[in-house]
Amino acid sequence: MRTRLERERVRAERVELADVVPDTVSFVGQLAILQLDAFMEYSQCARQAPRITTRRAAAHAASHALKKHDQLTELLSSLEADPIESMQRFAEPMARFRALTEPGNWQEGLLGAHVTTGILDEFFLRLAVGLDDEMTSKIRTILSADDGRDGVVLALRDEIEADDDLSSRLALWGRRMVGDVLLVARSALAQSVRQVGDGRAVGAKDNIEPVMTELIASHTRRMDELGLTA
Amino acid sequence: MRTRLERERVRAERVELADVVPDTVSFVGQLAILQLDAFMEYSQCARQAPRITTRRAAAHAASHALKKHDQLTELLSSLEADPIESMQRFAEPMARFRALTEPGNWQEGLLGAHVTTGILDEFFLRLAVGLDDEMTSKIRTILSADDGRDGVVLALRDEIEADDDLSSRLALWGRRMVGDVLLVARSALAQSVRQVGDGRAVGAKDNIEPVMTELIASHTRRMDELGLTA
Repeated sequence: MRTRLERERVRAERVELADVVPDTVSFVGQLAILQLDAFMEYSQCARQAPRITTRRAAAHAASHALKKHDQLTELLSSLEADPIESMQRFAEPMARFRALTEPGNWQEGLLGAHVTTGILDEFFLRLAVGLDDEMTSKIRTILSADDGRDGVVLALRDEIEADDDLSSRLALWGRRMVGDVLLVARSALAQSVRQVGDGRAVGAKDNIEPVMTELIASHTRRMDELGLTA
Repeated sequence: MRTRLERERVRAERVELADVVPDTVSFVGQLAILQLDAFMEYSQCARQAPRITTRRAAAHAASHALKKHDQLTELLSSLEADPIESMQRFAEPMARFRALTEPGNWQEGLLGAHVTTGILDEFFLRLAVGLDDEMTSKIRTILSADDGRDGVVLALRDEIEADDDLSSRLALWGRRMVGDVLLVARSALAQSVRQVGDGRAVGAKDNIEPVMTELIASHTRRMDELGLTA
């Protein structure tokens, strides 16, 4: 896990998203609501999955996301921002995204949560390099902690190997999700970037495309790992 | 929190449920699946509640229950029992109980989770005195840890104070739940008690009634705390 994130960190620095200067409170607030949302998606799968092992895997992933959420809200308090207010304005876009990507069954839900957190955690990790050094380091520590993904991957593989029909539906679902998640990332960039004198977001426009390409490459690796065509 | 549990511990010893000798693996397995179930109920409320503060309160209660579940499954492993197998036979009765007590809205769901964990955690705490001393102590430590109930109580109070109609529906719902939860407790006792030579459960029959009375008294205090008539 940590090794993968180390690799992503190197890639994040290669793609110069560091020129983008995010507004710290917006950045942390948005990331915090994303983690709470991940808790809700994973725990929904825990409720719907029939086997105890799958329920536990999804519940653990949910709990890890909540821990990140808690660390981020503590960070907001340490920045003298009100955690609820800082998250509130991002709640509505998240709810819209979830309404658009309502899964048809728990397997789609679990894949969706895995795909979403995979892409967005990496995206925010890349965006974090534009914060001040101390904050970048704090965000890296929070996002690099265990996220329970190994258990989720095992649970998804079990399902995928047991059912060819499900497997092809999940491949489609992953393809369907990635576009919507990348739109969330784009919107996150627009909403968390500090405006400069002329109202133009610093560096954002020039740097977003290569980052999107890298996010898609990581997504493809995650789908491969599950035995799914991206 | 700890003070309340201290008081309950004294009451647990007064009512001589200590004469009942539960089978350790059955006891821990059943308690572990109850905690996983509590995770699922609380997290469902987190998903359904509209406000971020309520979502967080329910999510934290869920996460605390999952932590207890994890500690109990570690205990099962230390007893050289297979955690999944030890829980599996209690999964079906729990699913039936949940089907019978499907809440009509998230407030009923949150009250239901609060009432269920309140009664059953206390019941298992009382029943634990019949285990060997080391095990009794371990179970007490696990069950006495923070369960996030303070946040849940605050969230429920906010709802109850804001809406008289909801308040009276929730009072009815609490009354509806308590009977079903006590049936789960009775069944838990029957299923976790070791059979002696003549096939009779040791001490169970004589001791269950006063315990039920005490569980109902605690339930009434919990409802009072919410401003609801039990």
